Amino acid sequence: MVETTRRQAIENAASALFHAHGYSGTSVRDIARAVDIQGASLYAHVTSKQDVLWSIVEHTASRFEAAVDAIEVADPGGATFGRGVYLIAFVRAHVGVVTDDIERASVFVHEWRALQGHRRDEIVRRRDAYEERLRSVIADGVRTGTFHAVDPVATAAYILTALNGLVGWFKPDGRLSSRVIADAYADLSLRAVQASRPPS
Amino acid sequence: MVETTRRQAIENAASALFHAHGYSGTSVRDIARAVDIQGASLYAHVTSKQDVLWSIVEHTASRFEAAVDAIEVADPGGATFGRGVYLIAFVRAHVGVVTDDIERASVFVHEWRALQGHRRDEIVRRRDAYEERLRSVIADGVRTGTFHAVDPVATAAYILTALNGLVGWFKPDGRLSSRVIADAYADLSLRAVQASRPPS
Repeated sequence: MVETTRRQAIENAASALFHAHGYSGTSVRDIARAVDIQGASLYAHVTSKQDVLWSIVEHTASRFEAAVDAIEVADPGGATFGRGVYLIAFVRAHVGVVTDDIERASVFVHEWRALQGHRRDEIVRRRDAYEERLRSVIADGVRTGTFHAVDPVATAAYILTALNGLVGWFKPDGRLSSRVIADAYADLSLRAVQASRPPS
Repeated sequence: MVETTRRQAIENAASALFHAHGYSGTSVRDIARAVDIQGASLYAHVTSKQDVLWSIVEHTASRFEAAVDAIEVADPGGATFGRGVYLIAFVRAHVGVVTDDIERASVFVHEWRALQGHRRDEIVRRRDAYEERLRSVIADGVRTGTFHAVDPVATAAYILTALNGLVGWFKPDGRLSSRVIADAYADLSLRAVQASRPPS
């Protein structure tokens, strides 16, 4: 239990530092100082800065995947309730994960490129599979006439990067709550792609 | 003239390296190797890596500003031809600058945070002034009923980060041309905010 807590404190500190200064701009010493432990002792908990980055990015990837898995269970690919409803649920779920832990989300969005070797390959693959779910729902929506004739690849990229942009400005204590932004961004995303106006 | 060309070559090489490996992940030696000159000689052209970054970011900021200035001259704030027309022109102009030099645009989008001191302050100020033009046109459009009741700050951030996301995937020789993407992204952005369907 103590181990888990210490590890968590290290990842919290690292997330804040990576968010503020980037992965390259943060040293193991910076992380150690932030959690008030000696560098040598830190290495008992973490073998390297790469390990901390991996843990943060992998955990955040899992949170995004789990949030969308929950939608899939209720409405696989939007086949039951429609692609518009799926898109709204997807945007709300994604915004929820981003705003729930803005520092880890920021590290996930900006610093995954600093991962090395097979870990980087795995995240590239999982990011692509995640985006593919959105592409596929958009393509289905175009086919069924729910959405207008957008390009699914360009459109999924447009929507996902718009949502990820929140890591650059969202403040938990800011003027706009997570819920307000989630609703607003779901509305913008749906309107961008839908073939006709939503029922008012 | 020789000086200008050499300087240009250095900035081209630095843009490609910063785009691929980040500012922190690139050394002056890497840049020197890419332009095939000795490190010591490089310093005759460039006093520091910060100077090269500044030159790339400042030049790109000026290109974005000039592209939108051209719209302002024809249609200040969208007051003449309407906020929808202005938004379409803004998105096309922004996408044009991004896709015209994807490496410099990528450095502008991702690496401006690595600028230090008053240069960083200046870029923060200019980015905000640029985004404020979009916010202001969105606010005007909401007021005049051209756009539905979106939040101008959240919506400008949504649109701008969606457009900037192109630096992560646009390929000059890819399936979708700059022109096709500019039109598609202008269409998505206008549909996202407009109060009613465009005349067909």
